[in-house]
Amino acid sequence: MSYDEHYVKSVVRSIPDWPEPGILFRDITPIFQDPRASRMVANAFIDRYMQMDITHIACIDARGFLFGAIIAHQLNKPLILVRKKGKLPGETIHQDYTLEYGTASVEIQKDAVTAGDKVVLIDDLIATGGTALAACTLINGLGASVVEVAALIDLPDLNGSQKIQDTGVPVY
Amino acid sequence: MSYDEHYVKSVVRSIPDWPEPGILFRDITPIFQDPRASRMVANAFIDRYMQMDITHIACIDARGFLFGAIIAHQLNKPLILVRKKGKLPGETIHQDYTLEYGTASVEIQKDAVTAGDKVVLIDDLIATGGTALAACTLINGLGASVVEVAALIDLPDLNGSQKIQDTGVPVY
Repeated sequence: MSYDEHYVKSVVRSIPDWPEPGILFRDITPIFQDPRASRMVANAFIDRYMQMDITHIACIDARGFLFGAIIAHQLNKPLILVRKKGKLPGETIHQDYTLEYGTASVEIQKDAVTAGDKVVLIDDLIATGGTALAACTLINGLGASVVEVAALIDLPDLNGSQKIQDTGVPVY
Repeated sequence: MSYDEHYVKSVVRSIPDWPEPGILFRDITPIFQDPRASRMVANAFIDRYMQMDITHIACIDARGFLFGAIIAHQLNKPLILVRKKGKLPGETIHQDYTLEYGTASVEIQKDAVTAGDKVVLIDDLIATGGTALAACTLINGLGASVVEVAALIDLPDLNGSQKIQDTGVPVY
């Protein structure tokens, strides 16, 4: 089944003024309620990363877990979880980053990846890119490299994908 | 690849005194770092639910999303997200439940399921069963039935799986 961008876009739901006034939220839950749409999206990533030299899939809590888990399963690759600080047991490293108001922090387990690993980082949506950039910093901090950042939806007006590409990491 | 319980158990990591003193935390992240282990676990669920009359997979935020997404993808079934209150856009219903100290609340979107749907509810671990029971209440509230609750790990000392079974819902 080939990727039909028009169809996938028609399934994503736009919700005005959520989670706060002035935000037009892109809701991907209807993608998962529609096995045709979710399979199209998953296959697009799977086909792409089958052909690339990668060792790990990383995914960002919580919606990034959905496609991340499917992609890692289909490619038989280890799956690495990037979570909000305080959610992962064992030894971890964390990275703070700036939000519009205040800061947030993500973390990964220290044994998640090691020097030389080649990681694709999956999230549902790229907005300001803050979370993805913090995740890249963590992965690089363990000696691994991020081959690409991938997401179902990009919000280019918020400039996140450009900021990621400015660090030398491609965005798909 | 058949399910090797001894092998899967050897991959789960037990972390003492996390997230607080006295708790022995069962960490399933090593399962996802090990494609052999994660495939064994996923296949056990997929093989089981391929043979049952179900219409939807539901999964609980956030670790439940991992196996939930894989199972729904492989079975080509819609995937329903059960999240902490305030995380899902659109019209939702929520259900409060009691924790050891205080209360928590989970919610689903109102259009997630409808009358007559047959749902398998997936989580990583069953402890007191509070979250799973609240999720069952939500699914039933929309007219659907929960065919089974499934998890990778059961902590029978906390009696959650028994409490779920006492409501007439099988636990796997």
